[in-house]
Amino acid sequence: MGGQHWVGVARGVADRLAADAVEREGKGAEPLPEIALLRESGLLALTAPAGLGGHGQDWATAHAVLAEVAAADASVGHLLGYHYLHLWRLWLFDVPERAAELVRATVEHGWFWAGVANPRDDALVLTDAPGGGFTVDGRKFFATGASVADRLVVSGLHPPTGDKLTFVVDAGTPGIRYLGDWDNLGQRMSASGGVDFRGVSVPARDVLGAQPAHDAPTAPRDSLPALGFQLVLSRVLAAVGRGALETAADYTRTHSRAWPAAGVDRAVEDPHVLAAYGGLRARLDAADLLVDAATAAFAEADLAGAALTAGARGDLSLRVSAAKVVTADLAVEVANRVFELTGARATSARVGLDRFWRNARTLTLHDPTVYKATELGRHLLTGELPVPDGYS
Amino acid sequence: MGGQHWVGVARGVADRLAADAVEREGKGAEPLPEIALLRESGLLALTAPAGLGGHGQDWATAHAVLAEVAAADASVGHLLGYHYLHLWRLWLFDVPERAAELVRATVEHGWFWAGVANPRDDALVLTDAPGGGFTVDGRKFFATGASVADRLVVSGLHPPTGDKLTFVVDAGTPGIRYLGDWDNLGQRMSASGGVDFRGVSVPARDVLGAQPAHDAPTAPRDSLPALGFQLVLSRVLAAVGRGALETAADYTRTHSRAWPAAGVDRAVEDPHVLAAYGGLRARLDAADLLVDAATAAFAEADLAGAALTAGARGDLSLRVSAAKVVTADLAVEVANRVFELTGARATSARVGLDRFWRNARTLTLHDPTVYKATELGRHLLTGELPVPDGYS
Amino acid sequence: MGGQHWVGVARGVADRLAADAVEREGKGAEPLPEIALLRESGLLALTAPAGLGGHGQDWATAHAVLAEVAAADASVGHLLGYHYLHLWRLWLFDVPERAAELVRATVEHGWFWAGVANPRDDALVLTDAPGGGFTVDGRKFFATGASVADRLVVSGLHPPTGDKLTFVVDAGTPGIRYLGDWDNLGQRMSASGGVDFRGVSVPARDVLGAQPAHDAPTAPRDSLPALGFQLVLSRVLAAVGRGALETAADYTRTHSRAWPAAGVDRAVEDPHVLAAYGGLRARLDAADLLVDAATAAFAEADLAGAALTAGARGDLSLRVSAAKVVTADLAVEVANRVFELTGARATSARVGLDRFWRNARTLTLHDPTVYKATELGRHLLTGELPVPDGYS
Amino acid sequence: MGGQHWVGVARGVADRLAADAVEREGKGAEPLPEIALLRESGLLALTAPAGLGGHGQDWATAHAVLAEVAAADASVGHLLGYHYLHLWRLWLFDVPERAAELVRATVEHGWFWAGVANPRDDALVLTDAPGGGFTVDGRKFFATGASVADRLVVSGLHPPTGDKLTFVVDAGTPGIRYLGDWDNLGQRMSASGGVDFRGVSVPARDVLGAQPAHDAPTAPRDSLPALGFQLVLSRVLAAVGRGALETAADYTRTHSRAWPAAGVDRAVEDPHVLAAYGGLRARLDAADLLVDAATAAFAEADLAGAALTAGARGDLSLRVSAAKVVTADLAVEVANRVFELTGARATSARVGLDRFWRNARTLTLHDPTVYKATELGRHLLTGELPVPDGYS
Repeated sequence: MGGQHWVGVARGVADRLAADAVEREGKGAEPLPEIALLRESGLLALTAPAGLGGHGQDWATAHAVLAEVAAADASVGHLLGYHYLHLWRLWLFDVPERAAELVRATVEHGWFWAGVANPRDDALVLTDAPGGGFTVDGRKFFATGASVADRLVVSGLHPPTGDKLTFVVDAGTPGIRYLGDWDNLGQRMSASGGVDFRGVSVPARDVLGAQPAHDAPTAPRDSLPALGFQLVLSRVLAAVGRGALETAADYTRTHSRAWPAAGVDRAVEDPHVLAAYGGLRARLDAADLLVDAATAAFAEADLAGAALTAGARGDLSLRVSAAKVVTADLAVEVANRVFELTGARATSARVGLDRFWRNARTLTLHDPTVYKATELGRHLLTGELPVPDGYS
Repeated sequence: MGGQHWVGVARGVADRLAADAVEREGKGAEPLPEIALLRESGLLALTAPAGLGGHGQDWATAHAVLAEVAAADASVGHLLGYHYLHLWRLWLFDVPERAAELVRATVEHGWFWAGVANPRDDALVLTDAPGGGFTVDGRKFFATGASVADRLVVSGLHPPTGDKLTFVVDAGTPGIRYLGDWDNLGQRMSASGGVDFRGVSVPARDVLGAQPAHDAPTAPRDSLPALGFQLVLSRVLAAVGRGALETAADYTRTHSRAWPAAGVDRAVEDPHVLAAYGGLRARLDAADLLVDAATAAFAEADLAGAALTAGARGDLSLRVSAAKVVTADLAVEVANRVFELTGARATSARVGLDRFWRNARTLTLHDPTVYKATELGRHLLTGELPVPDGYS
Repeated sequence: MGGQHWVGVARGVADRLAADAVEREGKGAEPLPEIALLRESGLLALTAPAGLGGHGQDWATAHAVLAEVAAADASVGHLLGYHYLHLWRLWLFDVPERAAELVRATVEHGWFWAGVANPRDDALVLTDAPGGGFTVDGRKFFATGASVADRLVVSGLHPPTGDKLTFVVDAGTPGIRYLGDWDNLGQRMSASGGVDFRGVSVPARDVLGAQPAHDAPTAPRDSLPALGFQLVLSRVLAAVGRGALETAADYTRTHSRAWPAAGVDRAVEDPHVLAAYGGLRARLDAADLLVDAATAAFAEADLAGAALTAGARGDLSLRVSAAKVVTADLAVEVANRVFELTGARATSARVGLDRFWRNARTLTLHDPTVYKATELGRHLLTGELPVPDGYS
Repeated sequence: MGGQHWVGVARGVADRLAADAVEREGKGAEPLPEIALLRESGLLALTAPAGLGGHGQDWATAHAVLAEVAAADASVGHLLGYHYLHLWRLWLFDVPERAAELVRATVEHGWFWAGVANPRDDALVLTDAPGGGFTVDGRKFFATGASVADRLVVSGLHPPTGDKLTFVVDAGTPGIRYLGDWDNLGQRMSASGGVDFRGVSVPARDVLGAQPAHDAPTAPRDSLPALGFQLVLSRVLAAVGRGALETAADYTRTHSRAWPAAGVDRAVEDPHVLAAYGGLRARLDAADLLVDAATAAFAEADLAGAALTAGARGDLSLRVSAAKVVTADLAVEVANRVFELTGARATSARVGLDRFWRNARTLTLHDPTVYKATELGRHLLTGELPVPDGYS
């Protein structure tokens, strides 16, 4: 089945998520039913290769799916996008058989993946275990999706060698504790609380390798994940803007009253309402195309594999930064301004229109947009390409 | 004691309100302790004439007090500003002795006043009562402060005469029910839910008169209240912007971490953070001055009393609209943008920095700013003055 | 030779235009050397079908060529884009043999085409001539390129029948006078002055038909030209933005001095300069993609020909409006803001950096962008498609 | 005669300047007739103390006069504002009798003053002359008004002592050559070209002193001039915005045609035109008040004289920076956006509406606004006051 089929599936999932997005967020429960919905729809296996039992879809389709899901529920879109990235990252290490095994199991068991690797925290520490393998200790903040995941991709430091090792682990392994401390403005359903590791055993075979170490990237390919995460954030931001605009338009159409001074009968005839919706829509169209172009460039870089050059990686990085800059500003602006187009009653908690602003505002702070713009400006002025790191 | 004394008192109240603003709002209780705090501080009697036992302060001082209180808690500032207006409105009717009596009692008992008169709802209906006076029935939405008030100023229609009558009533009178249905994005502590009147008795002596009827104002003076309310909203908006900026600055100063790409050690050295704070501060300074100028014009118009001309009233209306336009846009912008200056962790619910945006966003939707700008533009282009109505 | 070849040719033309753009504009001569340059480069015959001697390139290549030329000289890009449209419009009338004849002659003689049809002026009047054909009288303002054209496409009213007739005419026909009165802020080299017709003879065979009449379009295809013109304007606007950014970047790189308070040695290290350039670049990338998408949709609608439905025409119209909205705002903003990134000395007349702003500002006023945004907003809210007219 | 009288005089001057502002600028002659107009009106002597024959007006009146003049012709406003500052600066040196003498002569002869002291150029050099006094050599760029001045205030370096000396000189002294090389985008009538000194003799009595040296200010009072210049720039910028708005409004009122899609008969009824004018007007009102407040603070600091503390000087500096930040952004925005409100024909050179944008754009680049915002942000975050220099 082709990409269009899966976009249709995603739309169905999005409709179900949109139907009770306000109520679900209000309860603030862990997003387990949402993950179950993704699992049942087949979307968790979307990008797994057909040869391993998956649906074999490419990045373009994956992003088209994310756009639908995230417009309805940005947290779930965020979780799904990260899941695709974690699953894909397995292939970047030098263990193709282990990766294939894990992907196959993911399809079979419907695993949901998350990561534990926030670059701004202190590292987890891996100690050599007596019988081989490692014992892991430490704490990380902001591990999106970890508490509802089946499997985790985790990075930590192995002091004896100085290596930054990445390993996979069953999310239910004894010694892993989920702090449940994500109590933030937006992305409330993204299960982004911290994780504590106390003496967690990791067998040697679950260590994927010392790649990618942000501080010492070897091949350009190894530093693609940071760009993948930035790209997913851009996609989710664009979708939040779109979701805000369409949800607000629906409200204006069905609930808003014309303001007397407008001299019109219905809110949808107010000239300021019309022009404002139109202006935002035009800019969202442009933003979507920019994210699409960055997605195509990302897919191309991924296909290039080991042949990816530093220059091509740098160009991709600039495209991703451009997508981030445009979508971050626009998502916040749309989500903020739609209130002016819906009127006072749309501030009711029951309407829940503020969730778009809260989500956009939270997502845009993941890392400061102004430093993405700086990378683009520096390249324009000096030709310098961004140096790969945890955000570039 | 002079104005400076009372601004100092207000600052003390503001400090107490700021200390637990996030917690109080989280609980969402009726703002009775807040009203009690205002009462104890003397601020409820601030504008009552000295001859009637009050503190005899003018509008300039009242607004300076509001600026302090509203920067700390926009709901409480909103309630206090409306209280001053309701108390003052008593004098606009042709019943000076009754007004004096009510003001004196306000000082004596520490009454808090609110109003029931939202111009966009259907009117309450006054029926002639057998033994004289009236019986009042109907429902109004959005009666800010009514549920925590001691006395209400209420407007309703008397069908036999077609008069729109304004009366005062003890807020605890049987038949008045507070719906407690204010569950909105912002101004959560403003007790702005609806009010239901069922057979509420109002003696003839509590009817202040048929003024001001928005649809048929007789003297310019009679249509000043709408401007007073717009002005208080502008003041509260300016204060929300100031409160957001200062609260954020405090966070940046004490909690924010420098972003690695900034190449500085502390967030307070990040060039983008510095310039953004400075730009917003400059615009807030300008906005405050604009509200101050409108306040001075309002005070002057008030002093003119019956001698106020339609032209002078129109000029005041333009000044108030200008203040509204500038403060509405700026309060939302500041409250939105400060997150970019504080960083990701400031989205924590514990920090509660979003309350400024929620308050600003809610307040700006009271009536659409674009139609205030329209009034200013029309006057510039054609010389036409705004026609007095419930918002102008 | 493929599209890439022609983009290379366009780049060569652009380099020559950019080299003395400031001087040429300063002199303000008619753009005859510029037209000659286009002719010699082969670009005037770019879109003429290969079967008629032309280079047979599609709209995508034509627009890629326009992007290059217009970034260097917006007037010349404007002239070239309109030339392509006038040549293409010939096919929309029911006279394919005449159209083929004209296109063939265009290639052979290197004709440059312009139009005389500004919809906001009074119409030219066609009177039946004694021996058949018509005599044309009247005046039109703003006929871009007419005074330097070889052939004109002209519209006029034939009062006896009420038809709006379109005809072609040798631009040197006696009775046609070019007013040379284009003395405007920008697009100074676009030869956009008025044209006066006094007893101009038009033989019957030069009348293409009564199509397209904006007020009574018959087939959706017939109303495509207005969209073509809007699309070319969008392309030129995007190019003006790009040209401004790149010209400014070159200045910053080679001439700007670091401001002492920036604490850096070179202007290209100033954090505000870097971030501002980057932010504008990201948005220009998005705008270009939006124009590209509208161009592809336009090409598709063109290919559909008589099969084009009103719905598909309407969707295209919305895409073109979106491109116009985004590029108009952005071109002005970029051209305005680059001065902040180049510093005080870049205001020198010798640098001529203001030409981008003057061009953008002039182009954006062709028709008000806010009503393009209105069309987009109305469609979002009500599903209504824009009604075809001279601008939609 | 009081301030109101002089504001009336200024309005008369402004009316004469506005009447042919476009033509005068087009000719590009030296602004000698404009200086003559100022002289005849009495405005050159406005701030000279009454005891010395002047009109004895304060800074508030001087700035009210500047606002009128600069709204009509920003170059002339600029020249007049600098004249007031140069005349006033004489008193900051320790030579009160010489200052009195010069002011008295200024009134008597109708002298116009300008300065030669651009802090970003290399310094002029003073050599000890055989018979006492100095010989001055060197070149300065951008000496606003010098070429049309009667007397100059000049700063230069005296290498033997390392002193930065300030002296006055007859602008017609042999050896001073005016380069006439100001050929910039805006402020075209401000005579801002460079000045060349070759062996210019300066007698010892014309040396005012070694103050104020920006790099080693002794008393806070000595570093007031930089703030005075920034304040005058802010005033001129605010006036440019006002001038642009009012000139555009006049055009819209008398010339603009309604756009068909607006569905109104006259441009002054177009809802977007009305709201846009109103929004800009409101912000200009706020900006004016901010400049007024900074002017009052400057006057107060001036009155404090030697008693001025570093803290008070710092607070003033922040107020001036706030005025600069707000007026710079707004002047450019208004001057840019008014074209959207006047329509395409207002781009005609004959209308000359672009002069406001050109003036604003040029003035805002005098020194980068973002570093004024930085000063405000730094103070907010850290309490640091701006360090006095040539721009702060």
